[in-house]
Amino acid sequence: MTANLNPHISVDCVIFGFDENELKALLINRDPSEDPASSGKLKLPGDLIIRGEVLIHAAERILAELTGLHDIYLKQFGIFDDPGRLDSSDDLKWLQERSGLPVERVITVAYYSLIKIDKRIPTDLSIAYNAQWYPCSSIPAMIFDHNMIAESGLDTLRREMLTEPLCFELLPEKFALNQLQRLYEAILGCSLDNRNFRKKIQRLPYIVPLNERQNGVRHKPALLHVFDNEKYISIKKDNTVFII
Amino acid sequence: MTANLNPHISVDCVIFGFDENELKALLINRDPSEDPASSGKLKLPGDLIIRGEVLIHAAERILAELTGLHDIYLKQFGIFDDPGRLDSSDDLKWLQERSGLPVERVITVAYYSLIKIDKRIPTDLSIAYNAQWYPCSSIPAMIFDHNMIAESGLDTLRREMLTEPLCFELLPEKFALNQLQRLYEAILGCSLDNRNFRKKIQRLPYIVPLNERQNGVRHKPALLHVFDNEKYISIKKDNTVFII
Repeated sequence: MTANLNPHISVDCVIFGFDENELKALLINRDPSEDPASSGKLKLPGDLIIRGEVLIHAAERILAELTGLHDIYLKQFGIFDDPGRLDSSDDLKWLQERSGLPVERVITVAYYSLIKIDKRIPTDLSIAYNAQWYPCSSIPAMIFDHNMIAESGLDTLRREMLTEPLCFELLPEKFALNQLQRLYEAILGCSLDNRNFRKKIQRLPYIVPLNERQNGVRHKPALLHVFDNEKYISIKKDNTVFII
Repeated sequence: MTANLNPHISVDCVIFGFDENELKALLINRDPSEDPASSGKLKLPGDLIIRGEVLIHAAERILAELTGLHDIYLKQFGIFDDPGRLDSSDDLKWLQERSGLPVERVITVAYYSLIKIDKRIPTDLSIAYNAQWYPCSSIPAMIFDHNMIAESGLDTLRREMLTEPLCFELLPEKFALNQLQRLYEAILGCSLDNRNFRKKIQRLPYIVPLNERQNGVRHKPALLHVFDNEKYISIKKDNTVFII
């Protein structure tokens, strides 16, 4: 295994999910445990890249091993290259022991991923490393610079969701408008006016109402909608912003 | 020197300049030569990072050594990680000899840079490596995957100049509108209608006409303009595009 690792480059993933009320991130324990309820040091899912492996494949591997999911939204958003990012001596020692390499510096390439929280399949790895969802509003302390990476991933998501239809990666295929509103509120960290929000949405031809209502909810079942990606792409093409 | 290099990570720079008619990129010879006019194998300016050096500092170092310029526009645009990107045996052998390291794989982080072509100062390094401007429309063959990196940098510039005021990094502080138009035409690779272009520009409050005309031109001297960045930022803030 040792000879197959590239000691200088890793990939870390900020995996976002939305559970109807809160935006959450999937974190794992640093060490595997026989007792899945044990709470050890936390980290982002990630790994040194394997010799000959391209970065995106490393990110896909990490995601698939942990969530059982393939073909999910994955976007590179940053490179973390501070020479001192591994400096906490205990964490560095852990990395050297785990990799069997005299690692002293690792540059990590960060990806964020958006998954439909209910689609995740419990995998052996996610059980061994006690993978759990944590609210993005109060992410606990992690090793290395992983808190900074998670914060930067969240900033990127906040910015990019304003110009890209990312929110639909986090919602079920069919969603009610109040789910969409709650998601926006959760990511942007603010509350939006119900009436204005609905008015705005009704002007968007790519959010299409269905002849179908919610099932098994306690409140009055709301009308379901879908996102029409083809319509979105054709409209976006006509609205490219030119600086001049 | 050998011990100070990180054999796995490099930085490469696509340095763009505009000479009034054409968009150009600054390329160097692979090997230094006593005869500055000698034409050897070409490459993008770049280097393995030094141990403890962050990527942006490596890019700044490469730019300063080659152009004599500091504080110029520099933007990370991609990571090139194909395990086979160094596979041409002659070029790989060159890299191993030059670095004194058994390099077999290098992941490179690419930056593009925009400079005012007349501000470049001839440095010892640029003379030794015969740094020359080449038209982006016909960049000659380079080593490794450097043609692909240059092409990707150009694609990024084309895309980002539509939403960011990048063109003013390439123009002199005071410019005529036909210079701005020629720059757009050069980057986008198309010709724009004169009258429409002028009409569009006149609606933009951040392109400010001066009480001053061109000097020493053969044609009728045109009115000079400046870009008002503060005005641009305040207008941009009011026009953030929301997907919903």
